[in-house]
Order: sequence, then C-alpha cells, then structure tokens
Amino acid sequence: MACAIKVYLPQDSYEVAISSGYLDVLGEKTSTLGLGKKILLVSNPTVFGHYGERAINSLKSADFDVASCILPDGEQYKNLESLQKIYDAALENRIERSSTMVALGGGVIGDMTGFAAATWLRGIKFVQVPTTLLAMVDAAIGGKTGVNHPQGKNLIGAFHQPQLVLIDPQVLETLPDREFSAGMAEVIKYGIIWDRELFDRMEECDRLDRISAITPDLIEYILNHSCQSKADVVSKDEKEAGLRAILNYGHTIGHAVESLTGYSVVNHGEAVAIGMVAAGKIAVELGMWNPEEAQRQDRLIEKANLPTKLPAGIDIEGIIAALQTDKKVKAGKVRFILPTSIGKVEITDRVTSEVIRRILEQM
Amino acid sequence: MACAIKVYLPQDSYEVAISSGYLDVLGEKTSTLGLGKKILLVSNPTVFGHYGERAINSLKSADFDVASCILPDGEQYKNLESLQKIYDAALENRIERSSTMVALGGGVIGDMTGFAAATWLRGIKFVQVPTTLLAMVDAAIGGKTGVNHPQGKNLIGAFHQPQLVLIDPQVLETLPDREFSAGMAEVIKYGIIWDRELFDRMEECDRLDRISAITPDLIEYILNHSCQSKADVVSKDEKEAGLRAILNYGHTIGHAVESLTGYSVVNHGEAVAIGMVAAGKIAVELGMWNPEEAQRQDRLIEKANLPTKLPAGIDIEGIIAALQTDKKVKAGKVRFILPTSIGKVEITDRVTSEVIRRILEQM
Repeated sequence: MACAIKVYLPQDSYEVAISSGYLDVLGEKTSTLGLGKKILLVSNPTVFGHYGERAINSLKSADFDVASCILPDGEQYKNLESLQKIYDAALENRIERSSTMVALGGGVIGDMTGFAAATWLRGIKFVQVPTTLLAMVDAAIGGKTGVNHPQGKNLIGAFHQPQLVLIDPQVLETLPDREFSAGMAEVIKYGIIWDRELFDRMEECDRLDRISAITPDLIEYILNHSCQSKADVVSKDEKEAGLRAILNYGHTIGHAVESLTGYSVVNHGEAVAIGMVAAGKIAVELGMWNPEEAQRQDRLIEKANLPTKLPAGIDIEGIIAALQTDKKVKAGKVRFILPTSIGKVEITDRVTSEVIRRILEQM
Repeated sequence: MACAIKVYLPQDSYEVAISSGYLDVLGEKTSTLGLGKKILLVSNPTVFGHYGERAINSLKSADFDVASCILPDGEQYKNLESLQKIYDAALENRIERSSTMVALGGGVIGDMTGFAAATWLRGIKFVQVPTTLLAMVDAAIGGKTGVNHPQGKNLIGAFHQPQLVLIDPQVLETLPDREFSAGMAEVIKYGIIWDRELFDRMEECDRLDRISAITPDLIEYILNHSCQSKADVVSKDEKEAGLRAILNYGHTIGHAVESLTGYSVVNHGEAVAIGMVAAGKIAVELGMWNPEEAQRQDRLIEKANLPTKLPAGIDIEGIIAALQTDKKVKAGKVRFILPTSIGKVEITDRVTSEVIRRILEQM
C-alpha cells in the first residue's frame, strides 16, 4: 500500500512517498516535479552496488540525463573534503541551476548531498532516496543538511528542503542489523515525544532488532507513523525556533557520546539510545516522569538491541564539557528535552551539571 | 549627511547606513538590532591594521564580547580552506546561534563571512562593514555569499541577508587607487543598467580614478545612488529569478576573463569593465544599442582608468568555452545582459558564439 505524507512548509512543501518497490518508480515520480533534465546522483559504494543501477535505470527511462558521484562510506567522511568531491563532480558534469541532485544512501549521503545542493550555485533542487531506516525516519525529512566539523557533529550546514523523499522499505533487506537497530532508536524516540500509539504498537512486538523479525505491515506502520511524526513537527516549526527542538530528545547527551568516542565506538542511533536512557533517568530524578514509563522506554530500547549503558571507560567530565559546545546551548545554558509521559516531552534548561554527572555515573 | 537605504525583502529587510565617520558608531548601530552579545569579527591583515581597533572598540563600548579571525588578503584565498578557518574560530570562540559575525573588509571577506554565517549552525546573523568601493556598492548588498571553486568563481555559496550594512566613506582614503577604480566599474554599471542620472553626473567629472579626485559630495552621491540601485533591484528579486540578472551586466565575459587569467592579471572590476565594453559592442553589433552611447560608456570606463581591451595573449576560445560553465547558463544557452539605452538593459540568449568571437577579436 503506497502512502504519501505531505510536509507542509511556507515555501517548499513536499511529499514523502512510501511504498514497497518504489525504487523502480524514482524516475517517474521525479519527472512529475518539473525539474531540469540533468541529475547528479550521489551515493556510496555499498548502496550504489545494491541499488545504483535500478535507480539510474529508472531515472533514465524517465528521460533524465544522469551522472553519479560515489563517496566513501561512513560518518568519518561526512566532511568538507567529501563535499568538495560533490562540487567537483557538479562542475565536471556541468550541473546547472535547473539541475537536480539525488541522494541515494543513508543519512551521511543525504546530509552531504543536501548541503551540496544548498550551496552549489547558491542552491539547486534535490531529491532524497534514503536507504537506511535512520535516514528514512529522520535525516531525509526536515531539510537539515550539513557536514561535521572535526570537533563537532553537524556544526556546518544549511536548511534546504528536498523536492521529494522517496522511501522503498524493500531496500532495508540489505541493511546490516546493527544499522537497522540504529534506526529503531529514532522510531522509539517518536513514540516517546509524539506518538504514544506507535510506542504501544512496538511494545507488542517480541523483537525490534532486525527487519526479518518484523512483519511488512508493521514496518510500513512504523515508517508511516515515524515520518508523519517528523512531518508534523517540522511543518509546525521549519527552522527550529521552538517545537522542533523536541526532535533532539536523546540527542543532547547522544551527540556528546558520539563526539567523545570519535564517531567510531557507537553509531548515531546507539548514541541516541544512550541519550534517551539518560534523559529518561534525568526526568525521573527531577520528578517530571514516572519511573515505570521510563522502564518501558528502556525495555523497548533493549528489544531493539540498543545500548542502555555508557561505553566503557568514557570520560564523564568530557561529556559535560562537550555539552557546552553543542548547538543547543543558548546563552551558556544546556537545554534538555525530557519526557513527562509517553508521547509527550518538555524543554527545560534547569538540568544542572551535578544532576547530569550523577545520572551518568549510574550508567 | 547620513543616509539610510532600506533593502525590502519578504523576510529579512535591512538597512544600508551610509555616513562619514560611521565606523565609530558600528557598536551603537549593531546594538539596536537585538542580537546576542557574542561577535566574531572577520577581517584581513591590511584592513584590520587600519580599522580593526576602531571597529572593535566601538563594538566593545556597546557591550559586545568580540573575538576576531584574520584571513589572508586576496581573491586567491576565497576558498573552502579560508572558510574552514572561520569555522575553527567560531568553534574556538563558542559562537552560538544567537551570536553574530561581522565582516570588516572588501568583497572577499564579506562573501566568505556571509557564507560562514549562512552555514555555521545552519545559519547565524551577520553584519557587513565593507571597506572597498566595490564591496560598498555591490558585494555587501543583496545577500549573495560564497567562495570560489578552483575552476570557477562563486560556484559555492548561499543566499544569506545581512542584518545591517554599514558604510563609512572615510575608509576609502586608504584604498589603493587600482581598487578604487575597480569599484567604479560597478558604479558605471549602475549608470548603464538602472540610473541614467548617476551616469550623467559622473560624465561631468574630469577623472574617476582616485578618491582624491572626487569631491566628498560626489562620493556620497555615488554611494547613495549605487546602493539604491542595487537595493531597488534586489528588493524586487531576492533570489535572481529574473530582474536581478541585470546586475550581471558585464559579468558574463568578465567572469570568464578573470577565470582564464587565474584571478591575478585583472581584478574583478577591471574584468567587469572589459565585460561591459564587450557587451556594449555586442549590443551595437546586434542593432540593440546606438554606437554613440556605447562610446560614452567606454569613455567613462577610461576616465576611471579601467581597461577597455582584453589582457594581452588571452585565449579567446578559452573565454567562449568558459562561458558554458558560468552560473548564468540555462539549458546550455548563455544569457547576456545588453544595453538598449543608458539606464536600460535587456536579457537575451540570442548571442551566438560567432558574434562573441568576432567582438572579442576586435578587443
């Protein structure tokens, strides 16, 4: 069953189209957007090996002129050097203002391609074809694009909305289990911050740690509800003035953990899982959330085979210091997103370093 | 006499404030904008040596907390490496979303600082304090920001509007004559594309090649009329959908000449002067403009001590090939801005390579 979610924005509304087998209609869907004929498809060797040919064939059969740019795979390549490679490919293939970039890959490819599209010739159009669960439910929707600074994740970037997000759940079959779990962290996040029904439905499931353990119906349900949650929040707050901050639930400490471990020990979803566990404990400590619900959250995280403890040997003072360079710092105060019940969170800046330290020491 | 020109935009209207001695009220003016307390001032060693202390003192006396980032001077440093240095300084000085960048310098500093501000934490605010005539009348107004790609000028960038453009004509006294002339190229451009009165007023002047040859009144008139011309055009077309393209008069061939000579033989204004002479000749050749007005344009260009001939030995076929990679290419066709009378231009894509070649061979 095909599902189309609309992301409503003042200037750049667009569709998130979800359906099994959609990769083969990429060309057809893209041709309805009224774009120019030239496309630069950006991917990584793994994803391109699995799906590059199908994507290109679909685009070519819709009469697009397609060039491709293959970047090395991994968060460590989400930097200005890789960006330079996209610019080089854009120049070589004479990508014009009317041309389009297509991101075929996970969040790293999506974020970098989006940022390249935002900044090539001061902005051209782009289409997201996310191939990881994480990118499908999170990175591909919302228009956040960018690269990492050696000392901080996503410090360099721009808001740039795609023309279309095309999601084919079938491509998850080649996704490694650990990557699948990482995506589940964001799905669980939507349950906590926005969609209690999604949370309840996931609780009925025995395991959430691999695509083969979940029925196609449930995967579709999860994708629809997650994308709808993100679309709801983003539509109400395009540029993170207020509400959108709730999407950062679990990310405050999560980013610090990723940064301190050099983006290699834990992946983004695992870091967010740790961050959600920590945020849950902080909320309980401050009397904002009841401990039973916090435990339900943690059990769901475990069911997805995600970590609930800090990586061994991590420097807790380092985490606390890193929070100060986070984008979410405002006038020196760290803002936390904390649950008050499943499906509802609040934003607060009254979490002291002492509380953070105490909670982290328990983890 | 202080003059304030308003640039009207749907979301980010701002003021261009022009007056002798205004550098000392930078802090006061900036403090009226409701920005955060932290400022990163970006400049180059030459300009910072002349005016850095005054700018910083003015900001500090208005209670701002100011850090500075000094980049090497010159168009050849307008690249991703210099950008990285601004990002590093932003990280080091904990520049937050509520912080502001201030560009103190010419177009290179302004464009890079604006792009850094557009992309640091996905966009923070910035103020332009242009110190060259070229930057005052052109680069600082309009929100175009960016860096060069090794193979093409301004290929990487973003639209990002400043909160304020502060112009102090006094700082032109330390500007080298060649740089002053370069700025006059853009002033002459406004006369041709928009403001016949400005053109006529300049014709009354004996020489336009140095600040000391021009009365303070005329300089103020020139700054006001040039900034007003740019503000008029930009207000009507923020993102270069249509009208704004006329600002590229002289730039089509100009950019190719700059690029082919490695951005070292001629500066931007000189390249634009050459481009305007070429565009004028093409317009006459196509019967769009009368040859007497074209000659008046060329005489004004000579009065500003700007070139009217191509640099010796330049590869004409190289220019024609370079036009194909220009941002202004649309579906493979090069768009030219051509005068029809002084103060009025038209956009056309009917200029063939043969015509371009014939005209360039005469130059």
